[in-house]
Amino acid sequence: MKKSLIVVAVLAACAGMAHAQTVTQTPSSMTIYGTFDDGVFKRTGGPLSVGKRDNNKLGFRGVEELGNGLSALVNLEIRFEPDTGSVENGVRPLFQGQSRVGLRGGFGTLRLGRGLSAFEEAVLPFEPWSAVPSVAGFLTDLQVAGYTCDPLSVSGNSGNRISHALFYNSPMLYGFQLNANVASKQPNGSPVIIGRGTAANPQFGANSAAIVVPYSLSLTYLDGPLSGMGAVERNAAGTTFWSVAAYLYPLSALKLLASRQGQNQERNVLANPVTKAWLVGANYTLGAGKLLLGYGMKSPEGAAKTRQASLGYQYYLSNRTYLYVDASTKRLPVAPVLSYASTMNFYSLGVHHNF
Amino acid sequence: MKKSLIVVAVLAACAGMAHAQTVTQTPSSMTIYGTFDDGVFKRTGGPLSVGKRDNNKLGFRGVEELGNGLSALVNLEIRFEPDTGSVENGVRPLFQGQSRVGLRGGFGTLRLGRGLSAFEEAVLPFEPWSAVPSVAGFLTDLQVAGYTCDPLSVSGNSGNRISHALFYNSPMLYGFQLNANVASKQPNGSPVIIGRGTAANPQFGANSAAIVVPYSLSLTYLDGPLSGMGAVERNAAGTTFWSVAAYLYPLSALKLLASRQGQNQERNVLANPVTKAWLVGANYTLGAGKLLLGYGMKSPEGAAKTRQASLGYQYYLSNRTYLYVDASTKRLPVAPVLSYASTMNFYSLGVHHNF
Amino acid sequence: MKKSLIVVAVLAACAGMAHAQTVTQTPSSMTIYGTFDDGVFKRTGGPLSVGKRDNNKLGFRGVEELGNGLSALVNLEIRFEPDTGSVENGVRPLFQGQSRVGLRGGFGTLRLGRGLSAFEEAVLPFEPWSAVPSVAGFLTDLQVAGYTCDPLSVSGNSGNRISHALFYNSPMLYGFQLNANVASKQPNGSPVIIGRGTAANPQFGANSAAIVVPYSLSLTYLDGPLSGMGAVERNAAGTTFWSVAAYLYPLSALKLLASRQGQNQERNVLANPVTKAWLVGANYTLGAGKLLLGYGMKSPEGAAKTRQASLGYQYYLSNRTYLYVDASTKRLPVAPVLSYASTMNFYSLGVHHNF
Repeated sequence: MKKSLIVVAVLAACAGMAHAQTVTQTPSSMTIYGTFDDGVFKRTGGPLSVGKRDNNKLGFRGVEELGNGLSALVNLEIRFEPDTGSVENGVRPLFQGQSRVGLRGGFGTLRLGRGLSAFEEAVLPFEPWSAVPSVAGFLTDLQVAGYTCDPLSVSGNSGNRISHALFYNSPMLYGFQLNANVASKQPNGSPVIIGRGTAANPQFGANSAAIVVPYSLSLTYLDGPLSGMGAVERNAAGTTFWSVAAYLYPLSALKLLASRQGQNQERNVLANPVTKAWLVGANYTLGAGKLLLGYGMKSPEGAAKTRQASLGYQYYLSNRTYLYVDASTKRLPVAPVLSYASTMNFYSLGVHHNF
Repeated sequence: MKKSLIVVAVLAACAGMAHAQTVTQTPSSMTIYGTFDDGVFKRTGGPLSVGKRDNNKLGFRGVEELGNGLSALVNLEIRFEPDTGSVENGVRPLFQGQSRVGLRGGFGTLRLGRGLSAFEEAVLPFEPWSAVPSVAGFLTDLQVAGYTCDPLSVSGNSGNRISHALFYNSPMLYGFQLNANVASKQPNGSPVIIGRGTAANPQFGANSAAIVVPYSLSLTYLDGPLSGMGAVERNAAGTTFWSVAAYLYPLSALKLLASRQGQNQERNVLANPVTKAWLVGANYTLGAGKLLLGYGMKSPEGAAKTRQASLGYQYYLSNRTYLYVDASTKRLPVAPVLSYASTMNFYSLGVHHNF
Repeated sequence: MKKSLIVVAVLAACAGMAHAQTVTQTPSSMTIYGTFDDGVFKRTGGPLSVGKRDNNKLGFRGVEELGNGLSALVNLEIRFEPDTGSVENGVRPLFQGQSRVGLRGGFGTLRLGRGLSAFEEAVLPFEPWSAVPSVAGFLTDLQVAGYTCDPLSVSGNSGNRISHALFYNSPMLYGFQLNANVASKQPNGSPVIIGRGTAANPQFGANSAAIVVPYSLSLTYLDGPLSGMGAVERNAAGTTFWSVAAYLYPLSALKLLASRQGQNQERNVLANPVTKAWLVGANYTLGAGKLLLGYGMKSPEGAAKTRQASLGYQYYLSNRTYLYVDASTKRLPVAPVLSYASTMNFYSLGVHHNF
């Protein structure tokens, strides 16, 4: 009798401990971070406007040390429009920036969720405007030239993120790093896309599955005055994209940049599927700031080229905050012939704050 | 003259103080917390997919000590889809997890807002998968069997939360705790619901008020190797739901679980309004992990039963992070006769991280 | 040879430093803050309801000290519905409260983005309910009388914020402060607005640009028992609004308030464009709480007046948390004649918590 009571008491205590164990948590180590960028701009034919130069984000980042060099990582990044307070573009998902969870260890970093493709993750230091989406920058319109990582996602979706995906970054080895993403083929709420079909018989019906496994691969070398990268991607609709880029510091104050890109949409368009682009640029430390220079060209096969030249200056109030001024001019095609047509000029002035 | 100047000066000082008092704040004690769960899964007939096993959340929690054992509580919990970055299901409210404010003291906890019903709040330790919404778990499809707490809210709304409500939790007394919610009958933007009506004359027009006062009550006993709970709910459309459940720790490493549930939709459907379900399961500590086992059955009156068996393992990297693997099989009805039809198998592998 | 190797090594080191410099960040100083207000209310003809008295918000605020008295400021403020967990009104932008970035220094504060107009920013201490949007308060229905700061923004947009704007606050000088906003004329996704046009030929088509430069100016004096403010605004559709207000502390426990407002919609309506309003009120410290009193009248030109009397009490549990009770009665016009018609009574009881 007494023994059984003791057994019950011990079991009760153990049960209590076992239950308690599941709710104990070490304190959270979440960090809030972000970027707020806003300014005044004017483009040819448009009104004097207030708007952003860079993407705006509010992020939450956590790291848990698991021992033996292993960490758990989590990252959630809101993207927003600074002048209306809405989510990015008014329609994008709440955590447009990224939503990923994973583990980091000796094997590298392995994450699941949604985030920048391996190319987009690598390209930032190889673009003279650090890949900001401003008209003055070269990434969106020239380098990527309308290519989208995730064409079979919901309407308004970002063009440079991969959904329902695995993300791998290797450890750095002699300055080299391999980055690889692969996504599932599962449907993700896409609208009807005509593609190589017709309005009556579109290539992709609503909520289509991927026709190939989407992936992105990039290899970077970031260890010296001369650095480089190469990347190749294939999206859910079968469009392929590639990029090679390099930068050089001939002087500590001067960074020279060059890149070449191409895409092939032959699985999605009926004619002239290839577009190529190139870019040269420089960053030069000048006083408490940095001068930005760039010139590039986009050449869609069988259609007119777009040429762009940009000049900017970033004046650093701190390593987190700078004021900027940009001027850019773009020669745009108006007809599908090999001529240059109307010119679009762009000027902006604003503040960029990382927090 | 001088006196009146002194009076004015004193009044000015007092006014300043009185005004200042309303803006002084003690430092905030907000805690950021959450869950990020993502993995790879495959179900019969579906593609290899990337998706969640548990709900994903990012929460903000605050406690202010008011003295005399009284505290003010606030809780706001974002729910999101890990693989698209959108809010849960793409349409749910931002703070789908919960949004509540209230006071805690000797009388218990009294809160206002929106949150889990008293049943849903109590059921977690009585389900072998800790009530995760995965296909491998038993809560959503079997135990609750399609019952929804809040049928007259906006389209896409959660099925296990109560809006426009008061939430009460009693203090623990000899291991017992009483939890009670009551919601207002106010309309909350519901779509048209046919219910016992017809398409031309639906039971509930758009933005209908509740036809009864919605409530949820649960009583839990959580103080020993044998714990139990009982709950009863009624939603805004008059559907009732009940649940009884227990768990036992015969060994400190072994938890045995059993529950029985039922709902009655007689105020909303024309025939066969009753559905019942039962479930047995076990959790067993094995190495650095926990083995999960469950078997259950849902029996809709006058229709075929659904049977489900699941097996899982959670490997703990820490008390906040585990890897999991699940296998589950479900016998599904295809016609409203008492037979079992097609089998759906489900496999998943992923990571669960609390932060 | 050796020299050139040394040069390369130095360049490499400098390049590394230059690159590293752009990614170093001082730790973030973001503060999480907010308000959660919820209660029970009843209005004539309506059901007993659960709902808010004040706006509910969750904000993120950062300050970076830049040296020489200069700071960078960032502010992002979510607004939400406490009883459904959705963003404010279910349709408003995520950061409805505000989204602004800027600099503060000896020159004052200069910010860009979206936020309260200079009038709305100044009016808070001049309204007896501190400008809460409750039916018991006077700001929304009486003082502002339907005037909206931002009529050419997306549907459901807030009436008291300015988008795509510059915000300036002067330093305090002898108790005086000047606040000024100016917005761009750029289109911001507005729906069709008939205005002075017809359904077939509306005054404003979808996504119209502003017809005038929107601005708001306010001057406050907040340094003594007698304080005052004056403000004037013009919105994107050309409607003008003005306000003058004062408060006095005849005793340190007693604050008396009075204000007068008017708007002129002659550029947007065909007849009777002018509406005026006045308000008197008091706050009186009573025990651990504050008694609120107010009486006001709105007089639309050529239409019936609305009169409102309110009585409330706020009981402070701390300087961050209070319980409140309100009673209010409003005489509403039913026909466009100078008579008073149906009476709407309103009662509420709830909790207000700042965090």
